[in-house]
Amino acid sequence: MIFTQPVLEGNRLSISRLLTQVENDTPDGRVALAEIFPHTGKAHLIGVTGAPGTGKSSLVNQLTLYYRKQNKKIAIIAVDPSSPFTGGAVLGDRVRMRDLSGDEGVFIRSMASRGSVGGLAQTTASFTQVFDAAGFDIIIIETVGAGQSEVDIARLAHTTIVVEAPGLGDDIQAIKAGILEIADVLVVNKADRPGVENTERALRSTLELAHPTKRVFRHHGQTTSIDAPEADANIWIPPINKTISTDGKGIPELADSIAKHIAHLRQSGDWALRDRARLGSELDAVLQEELVNRFFERVKKDEYDSVVDKVLSRKLSPYEAVKLLLNGNSEQER
Amino acid sequence: MIFTQPVLEGNRLSISRLLTQVENDTPDGRVALAEIFPHTGKAHLIGVTGAPGTGKSSLVNQLTLYYRKQNKKIAIIAVDPSSPFTGGAVLGDRVRMRDLSGDEGVFIRSMASRGSVGGLAQTTASFTQVFDAAGFDIIIIETVGAGQSEVDIARLAHTTIVVEAPGLGDDIQAIKAGILEIADVLVVNKADRPGVENTERALRSTLELAHPTKRVFRHHGQTTSIDAPEADANIWIPPINKTISTDGKGIPELADSIAKHIAHLRQSGDWALRDRARLGSELDAVLQEELVNRFFERVKKDEYDSVVDKVLSRKLSPYEAVKLLLNGNSEQER
Repeated sequence: MIFTQPVLEGNRLSISRLLTQVENDTPDGRVALAEIFPHTGKAHLIGVTGAPGTGKSSLVNQLTLYYRKQNKKIAIIAVDPSSPFTGGAVLGDRVRMRDLSGDEGVFIRSMASRGSVGGLAQTTASFTQVFDAAGFDIIIIETVGAGQSEVDIARLAHTTIVVEAPGLGDDIQAIKAGILEIADVLVVNKADRPGVENTERALRSTLELAHPTKRVFRHHGQTTSIDAPEADANIWIPPINKTISTDGKGIPELADSIAKHIAHLRQSGDWALRDRARLGSELDAVLQEELVNRFFERVKKDEYDSVVDKVLSRKLSPYEAVKLLLNGNSEQER
Repeated sequence: MIFTQPVLEGNRLSISRLLTQVENDTPDGRVALAEIFPHTGKAHLIGVTGAPGTGKSSLVNQLTLYYRKQNKKIAIIAVDPSSPFTGGAVLGDRVRMRDLSGDEGVFIRSMASRGSVGGLAQTTASFTQVFDAAGFDIIIIETVGAGQSEVDIARLAHTTIVVEAPGLGDDIQAIKAGILEIADVLVVNKADRPGVENTERALRSTLELAHPTKRVFRHHGQTTSIDAPEADANIWIPPINKTISTDGKGIPELADSIAKHIAHLRQSGDWALRDRARLGSELDAVLQEELVNRFFERVKKDEYDSVVDKVLSRKLSPYEAVKLLLNGNSEQER
């Protein structure tokens, strides 16, 4: 039994314990999540993602220090989906601890992937609910990399920041295309390094493919561009911010871009849409899990195993096997 | 209606059409998959994964050319999970086409992630079944990157090859730990580049952490190592192969490592275990999907939407909502 009142009051030890229950998906954790759920929906969820080496972690640190000066309470969830087996520590944790430890207004929790990607996104969603209910104003979800799992986690956020850095090689380029499509704000970090113009240019041209703001004409070897028709207020074009996270340069401007994005979300109604998408997919994930659990509660182990054996000996295809399991089963129920 | 006989006979056009049906998850595709399933289980599935820039694609090309000299039929499934939205072409395709096109004994199919990761792994699994039934001896599943999705896809293979290359930066190191645990054979490609010794040493030390073969003692400042007790024949220690995929150097040795791994799988009984794991998880994925489909067939849309609304207004938590949906529903059924 977990008492949720101290969590709602922001008690750090209670929050920490609840997160552990949630991570281990205990029945107590589930009950507590249901109890705190009515108190959620206030926090601003910021996703920060980017390839290893872009300096995401120190960027998150700097952003946190900035928000702390405005007296906002910040929770950081650092997720490392690229490490599915080892459960190792998330990169940059040590730097982070040095800068932020001892500040009661900051709560940091690392999470390494153990189960499925779906599970990871679901646990992250539950974590945000705990922090949200506990009164944190901003919850930063930091993920490493640019694969599907990061995209799934980024979908949890109101504002997704994609971090790039110069000099990570051309191959990174290939990854960008996918991840760019989830970006609300783009950051070129390590902006004091050589090659920053190239990175910015590459981002800008990829962006323009996705959100054309100018029309370009080529005529007799000359290029003319005219502005596209006045942009619709409901369309958000991701700004590109340059930062140097080691000394905090560009952080106020980044915070400004984020604030503008929140304002846009509120005005356009996208905030509610994102909320619906997030909670809808969480509902579907729970539903799916519960349907599977209930199936395995009612099906006999012998029956299931004998069907698996038939698949292994290639007598039944997986689809036929499932049909047999589900139809055989519902007949038994009647 | 798809006629599966030409697929079983290896007709390229029929195979190609069936793959498209499978990719689009059509009812016809499902029926055909069930029909060909009894003819599967013969092919050797090789997974090849590694970060962008390691030269995976040309390595796969070289390996294919090598196997072609032994008159083996090869199918290549190139999966790019890092590009979830754009559906763009997989890297290295052009090089591949130049080297291998026109060879009737090679079939290449690219696949970009469109839906969920789970869906991608499932489609890949179905693709391997098509090629397996069509008489391909070796099916190479090539994935980009090192995230959870690549791991899921790698689990489909009998033999998983993880490709590294020198000079990809220290940050790659962090990714390695997870992906190494799925490697059956390790490759340091681009072995003519500077830094190859460092990459090999890093791999070897990570490997030794996972599979200690020597015990090291430190005594009075001196280090002594003795061999660990005779390795169990059932334990496979991933060999490290060095290759230069641009000129094919090291490819016969790599093929030899792969052949040894197959022999090990057969001897140790791991082949059957991997088969069971693969088909078991495929069965579970189909089961899950079908349970969800059947749920949405029997639940009323109004009822579902009104529950979603209650979640959005924070009156019900997702868990409570699912309970309500499932229990309310089963009561209606009785």
